[in-house]
Amino acid sequence: MTYAILSEALRAAMARNDDNAITHLIAELQPADLADFITQQNPAASLELLRHLPLPERAEAFGYLEQEQQLNLARLMPERELAGLMTPMPADERADLFNLLPEPRQEATLRHLAREEREDVRRLASYREGTAGALMTTDYVTIPEQAKVAEALALVRRTAPDAETIYQLYVLDERRRLVGTLSLRELILNSPASSVRALMTTELVQAEVDLPQEEVARLISRYDLLALPVVDAEQRLVGIITYDDAMDVAEEEATEDIHKGGTIGKLEGGLRNASLFTLYRKRIVWLVLLVFANIFSGAGIAHFEETIEAYIVLVFFLPLLIDSGGNAGSQAATLMVRGIATGDVRLADWGKLLGREMIVATGLGLTMALAVSLLGTFRGGPDIALVVALSMLVIVMVGSLIGMSLPFVLNRLGWDPATASAPLVTTIADASGVLIYFGIATSLLGLPA
Amino acid sequence: MTYAILSEALRAAMARNDDNAITHLIAELQPADLADFITQQNPAASLELLRHLPLPERAEAFGYLEQEQQLNLARLMPERELAGLMTPMPADERADLFNLLPEPRQEATLRHLAREEREDVRRLASYREGTAGALMTTDYVTIPEQAKVAEALALVRRTAPDAETIYQLYVLDERRRLVGTLSLRELILNSPASSVRALMTTELVQAEVDLPQEEVARLISRYDLLALPVVDAEQRLVGIITYDDAMDVAEEEATEDIHKGGTIGKLEGGLRNASLFTLYRKRIVWLVLLVFANIFSGAGIAHFEETIEAYIVLVFFLPLLIDSGGNAGSQAATLMVRGIATGDVRLADWGKLLGREMIVATGLGLTMALAVSLLGTFRGGPDIALVVALSMLVIVMVGSLIGMSLPFVLNRLGWDPATASAPLVTTIADASGVLIYFGIATSLLGLPA
Repeated sequence: MTYAILSEALRAAMARNDDNAITHLIAELQPADLADFITQQNPAASLELLRHLPLPERAEAFGYLEQEQQLNLARLMPERELAGLMTPMPADERADLFNLLPEPRQEATLRHLAREEREDVRRLASYREGTAGALMTTDYVTIPEQAKVAEALALVRRTAPDAETIYQLYVLDERRRLVGTLSLRELILNSPASSVRALMTTELVQAEVDLPQEEVARLISRYDLLALPVVDAEQRLVGIITYDDAMDVAEEEATEDIHKGGTIGKLEGGLRNASLFTLYRKRIVWLVLLVFANIFSGAGIAHFEETIEAYIVLVFFLPLLIDSGGNAGSQAATLMVRGIATGDVRLADWGKLLGREMIVATGLGLTMALAVSLLGTFRGGPDIALVVALSMLVIVMVGSLIGMSLPFVLNRLGWDPATASAPLVTTIADASGVLIYFGIATSLLGLPA
Repeated sequence: MTYAILSEALRAAMARNDDNAITHLIAELQPADLADFITQQNPAASLELLRHLPLPERAEAFGYLEQEQQLNLARLMPERELAGLMTPMPADERADLFNLLPEPRQEATLRHLAREEREDVRRLASYREGTAGALMTTDYVTIPEQAKVAEALALVRRTAPDAETIYQLYVLDERRRLVGTLSLRELILNSPASSVRALMTTELVQAEVDLPQEEVARLISRYDLLALPVVDAEQRLVGIITYDDAMDVAEEEATEDIHKGGTIGKLEGGLRNASLFTLYRKRIVWLVLLVFANIFSGAGIAHFEETIEAYIVLVFFLPLLIDSGGNAGSQAATLMVRGIATGDVRLADWGKLLGREMIVATGLGLTMALAVSLLGTFRGGPDIALVVALSMLVIVMVGSLIGMSLPFVLNRLGWDPATASAPLVTTIADASGVLIYFGIATSLLGLPA
């Protein structure tokens, strides 16, 4: 049955309080779908639903919930129940949940966990958010270097129920340092008597615990890894990060970059769950900053007040000209920012890219100058057409130059290049556009005596 | 050794034509790193390098190259060599390469392939680009429904060398219809005598061949799948799509959305490889369209020429006010477009989101009106301050309304909501801002007699 049919049946069963039907239907839902269904209920009803599932399935569905939902449900559970739910959760999700809890609840819940889980939570929860350490799980399979394939397979069978993945195995020396990796595929394809040391890959792709999460996602995607091992400064294996977590990080990072490109601050959790005040707070900062930045455009206009009064027709072309510079600049900035984020563009390429951009911008500027000169002739005669066309060419070239340089300049200053958003580029390009336009107009048309 | 060290040593070995050292160093590089290294060489040197690798490794590294690079190298190879390279390639990458070749070369190359590969290429190459069919591979492991675990394991061992993944297994009935999936983990954990039918999952997450690739990526990410089975209209299994391809699609789709948000058309391949004319072509369309859209702003200004001549100080605030509407609108559009793309926002939520947006926009508008009223008092006295503050409030609210509605309207018209780019929103908000500002000014200040 599809999610649509199941969820409708489940809603009906809930309406008539049919516990039996609920238990039956809920077991058929994929954990991700169940999480989605739960998100649409109030917290009390959600908890009621979850309690219809056996503990392992309950923990799995719980892991698919957004953090805010997890916290809402955790608030309603007694500590003992919460600890019971946390026990079968994957180590990384368990530590994330722990970090969400208010401090007194953290301690109270820890007391109900078994010692092994308690120590694991404490260790994992201590890594800084946004790093490899905070993403990694401790549920993986390790194999001693001197093992044979048969022993390794036996180890896999023994650890499989708890491990997040058994398809990638980690070979450790006697000091627990990571010396190689081995896939289950290789174990299965080779004779039981072969030695692990001979089969393992020693060209390791690995991360240190403090590697930023976007780098983690990039490594996993670049090398098509199932899981990335995480080591401490002594090369000891401390965790692994699986590809599905990397996919979530990549999506989160793309959202953050897109939001930054629209001058919106980092939103934790989704748009749907954000409070109105949070949305206000994440948007007002740049809006006000840009108001003040726009004063430069205003000041430029004030400076040329006499020219404007003499040739009021110039104002007709003002939005069109300054916007074009901003638009061409936004395009250039967008290409650069995304290129830097995906690794397609390197900072060292700046000089070469600048040269290319100037050629493209000249082409764009000439085309647009042609378009606008027709308009200029029609509205203001040949003199105005010349001013407008020439301004367009220069404005588009300067706008492109600003848009393409800003991400690199910001990066040099230690800022995220994604801060070079369309609105910021537009505002800077606007101010320079005003100066270029009225400057050209004043010098070509002259001031009335 | 790290990539940096290896690549430097490799460059040195190439400079002194040390074939022995090249063969040695190249074998140590990860395929993804080798592809990256090759990208920095000219095609002839790249091909020379690849030829230092044994065929399977050569095919793997080749698969990591961008399509344009693949095509450049394929041009230099005799058909027989090309066919030899294609044989060990994964079925999906092989079909993609085939689709890149000019038609006469396609036929010539096919003749050198074994019959099985030839038919596989023909079949896979026939699916439309951007669909599940074009992404899928045919290298997977299937198990008959009535098999026992022991037989299934034997089948896995037999097919493992050719399969793209052996960790997810597909159970077919006698008519080759997909009836269940089974993980290698389950095979390993259960007794050899258990029946596959009893162990397999029958709640299938699957795709039809024509499902758009962004939906494929979303399914794999939502359900944390290792691979997604693809079926035809008769539920027969025709291919699988692995998580690493889904990660590439997700990145590609995010780039496309970000580019669209900067009014840049779809760029195949990376920015680095794009020709200057392609860049011009992908950018000019929207730039010129927006020039003409901006005529509305100009016409608005022309309409209020008398007001402007009477109160020339109003022009000082023009960029600041109309940009603020555009900026607030861009923020709203950015939030909506990304929300729709990630599935966080549904079209059905529009009414509720609109209500929330209007509350937030009122808060934003009031804050900005306050900021700008101080500026207005300073530059033009209390009358001007009132006009400017009131305009700011209305402009920010209207701009937000435009930004948040445009993606939904576009979607209704069958367009991609991502077309609601910051520059488009800004241009529409600008025109309405001009009307609001000078409209309010004219009615509050009155026209000089």
